[in-house]
Amino acid sequence: MPQPYDLSAAELARQIRDRNITPVQVAQSLLERMDSLEPRLEAWVRVDRETVLADAKQRQEELDSGVETGPLHGVPIGIKDIYNIAGVPTKAGSKVYADYVPDETAATIGLLQNAGAVILGKTVTTEFACLDPSHTKNPWNPAHTPGGSSSGSAVAVAARMCPVAMGSQTIGSVLRPASYSGIVGLKPTYGRVSRRGVVPVSWSLDTVGWMGRTVEDAALLLQVMAGPDDQDPVASRLPAGDYLSGLESSGPPRIGLITSFFMEEADQETQRRTRAVVEQLASAGASVVELTLPESFGTAIQDQMTIMGAEAAAFHKPMYEKQAQDYRPKLREMLRQGLETDATTYSKALERRLRFSADMRLLAEKADVLLTPSTPTAPLADLTNTGDTRFQGPWTSCGLPTITLPIGLAESGLPLGIQLIASPFEEARLLAAARWCERVIDVRLVPPVEN
Amino acid sequence: MPQPYDLSAAELARQIRDRNITPVQVAQSLLERMDSLEPRLEAWVRVDRETVLADAKQRQEELDSGVETGPLHGVPIGIKDIYNIAGVPTKAGSKVYADYVPDETAATIGLLQNAGAVILGKTVTTEFACLDPSHTKNPWNPAHTPGGSSSGSAVAVAARMCPVAMGSQTIGSVLRPASYSGIVGLKPTYGRVSRRGVVPVSWSLDTVGWMGRTVEDAALLLQVMAGPDDQDPVASRLPAGDYLSGLESSGPPRIGLITSFFMEEADQETQRRTRAVVEQLASAGASVVELTLPESFGTAIQDQMTIMGAEAAAFHKPMYEKQAQDYRPKLREMLRQGLETDATTYSKALERRLRFSADMRLLAEKADVLLTPSTPTAPLADLTNTGDTRFQGPWTSCGLPTITLPIGLAESGLPLGIQLIASPFEEARLLAAARWCERVIDVRLVPPVEN
Repeated sequence: MPQPYDLSAAELARQIRDRNITPVQVAQSLLERMDSLEPRLEAWVRVDRETVLADAKQRQEELDSGVETGPLHGVPIGIKDIYNIAGVPTKAGSKVYADYVPDETAATIGLLQNAGAVILGKTVTTEFACLDPSHTKNPWNPAHTPGGSSSGSAVAVAARMCPVAMGSQTIGSVLRPASYSGIVGLKPTYGRVSRRGVVPVSWSLDTVGWMGRTVEDAALLLQVMAGPDDQDPVASRLPAGDYLSGLESSGPPRIGLITSFFMEEADQETQRRTRAVVEQLASAGASVVELTLPESFGTAIQDQMTIMGAEAAAFHKPMYEKQAQDYRPKLREMLRQGLETDATTYSKALERRLRFSADMRLLAEKADVLLTPSTPTAPLADLTNTGDTRFQGPWTSCGLPTITLPIGLAESGLPLGIQLIASPFEEARLLAAARWCERVIDVRLVPPVEN
Repeated sequence: MPQPYDLSAAELARQIRDRNITPVQVAQSLLERMDSLEPRLEAWVRVDRETVLADAKQRQEELDSGVETGPLHGVPIGIKDIYNIAGVPTKAGSKVYADYVPDETAATIGLLQNAGAVILGKTVTTEFACLDPSHTKNPWNPAHTPGGSSSGSAVAVAARMCPVAMGSQTIGSVLRPASYSGIVGLKPTYGRVSRRGVVPVSWSLDTVGWMGRTVEDAALLLQVMAGPDDQDPVASRLPAGDYLSGLESSGPPRIGLITSFFMEEADQETQRRTRAVVEQLASAGASVVELTLPESFGTAIQDQMTIMGAEAAAFHKPMYEKQAQDYRPKLREMLRQGLETDATTYSKALERRLRFSADMRLLAEKADVLLTPSTPTAPLADLTNTGDTRFQGPWTSCGLPTITLPIGLAESGLPLGIQLIASPFEEARLLAAARWCERVIDVRLVPPVEN
């Protein structure tokens, strides 16, 4: 009999619905798990046990009283500490937000709560979801980076301290830590999910996303959170799709393997392992076509940094002018550069990004999903940075929905992953393809944290 | 029997198709009209009679040989001199482009030619489609501004030197001159029509548009030019709609009259005349609801200027650095300011515009079409500027499709117009509503240029 902490969000929801387990038992199982692992992993910023247990008890009472329950009824979730919850401090990993207590709750958190989720606590983020590393430890090996910026969420999910957790991505902050921890990470299309109530990095890039250990969980969370939000100007007016009903039934996808850049810049082992997975998928029936990147990819990575710097500077300017010394070094330097950027430089970067995005939309039309390794290498034994962002950033830049799946361990004992990418707002197709690949790859990674 | 120059593009296409008139007769009629009016109106930059007549003759031969013809077969059109035609100079109204001869043809011009149109010539634009007035005269009274920047196209259409003409809009450069000349002007949704091959002002605002004397002609040109363009990153992937078949059959629209700002800033006469038209439309069966602008409108006009300045500076920078003295004063000043703008200022303006656009999309959902006066006043007797841009600019800023219709003459003897605005990519609904209003308003303005 598996422990509750070992179950996926979807499975927990089913077990709770079937009265095999109670929300309080689930919450207790996860809190005990935290007791044993959190001192070593440092994935959480704030867990208010009394609130968690009170919420779980309320979910139990709702269930007992026969009120209609949502698809996440009683399921605990971790929240990256840049999502606002009314009355709860948002620290965003920064001294600058030492005293910030928001009075509104993020739109996504409201949707999760309406679906019955129990907020387990706030997870560690790098400072303002940027590039200075956090203290969170990779559960596979604490000498290796867990990635960033959603390091706490990735590690909490990988180490089974929660089944799912919210992250966010401006360059690679969902996909990279998810891959580095050996779990599933989903970054929906830019505009698919409301960002209202999330501390911004860069308004034209920021995308909310999340981690889980199964594609089904990634889809379940999207089903709860996708859709228009009249109060978020970035949120698309397109109604949400059906992300769940096609998951188990869809056939083998047409896969576009991107051979340029990604397969060149990845280390030999990552290239070999990615090729092996592609062959495995092809053997199982997927059709594979090899694709190359458009010329406009040439400046995409540098342009994304220019854009992020300028937009982060626009947001932080009033705070930076008062307390620059309170920012950590990488972010301070990024803000300094952003403040010095002129409008024409930023405009040119935006305009080139528009071309890149359009070209990538055309590329994405050539297959059901594009495929690349998620990272150039398994996470390295280097805690001075959060890892290589170049493989995840382009998908944020062009706004296409992207999911990372674990494919196994490198010789170093650390996880490797692949990314699948689809056309804008084609998350249903992306998730169905990812679920098909997940079944074929059939890898379940459990980090050695019990030792 | 009306002269060919007096017919609409749709009517000319029908008459040509029915062999009642030949393309050469049409071209000759318009060239003669130019002979008599152009010296006074100065609407054209370049008309190559031999090429026009050769093209018309070729159309005639195609018709005689029974090849399949397009919807504009033999119909002449004027082209604002910022659209590239391979091998033909594009001067963009500027000394800076004294020697510019493009080697590619704008996507829209190619589509017009494929549809059988005969390019009649290049029309006058203000310098680089910006705010320094051109020498073109308003056909209603040369002491009053014809507006800008598409002044030549508007005046050529109003004075019946061509049935339709291409313009472009970054703030109000289609809608304002069309209204000031007493004709119809259409600015489609941002991204509905390819901009490839058109000299840019501001990449995030520029929208191609056109003028005609009837709603049917505005729709006919949209039908020819709407649709994706793989080579234009701004062009939407949405397929084109059917803009013609519902034109005559659609019932009275639900109209949202915007009472704030527009009805406050318009002069008394414009307010009164707009109210009278709205009552006329209501009497004919339209339902009218009064709406007010969102709070985010507050900074929209200033932000648009910031954005335009920064993006124009990004494009002109290399030329401006070499030959600033060759620019006219208003544009030179705009570029100087744009070059001095920092990225954070521009980013904040873009971000506020995003909010404004989202709010305006929500407002547009409250009716089939929104309605405002097109300009605060009829064109004024002031040739030092191109008129008041504040009523047209917001619709370019938020990207919504907008059409201007003449409603009659002010006491000054100069034209007044109303604008109708619809939800993004709802041009079919916009045009059907406009055609219904056109039938009810039943005004046909012919400027006194024969005197």
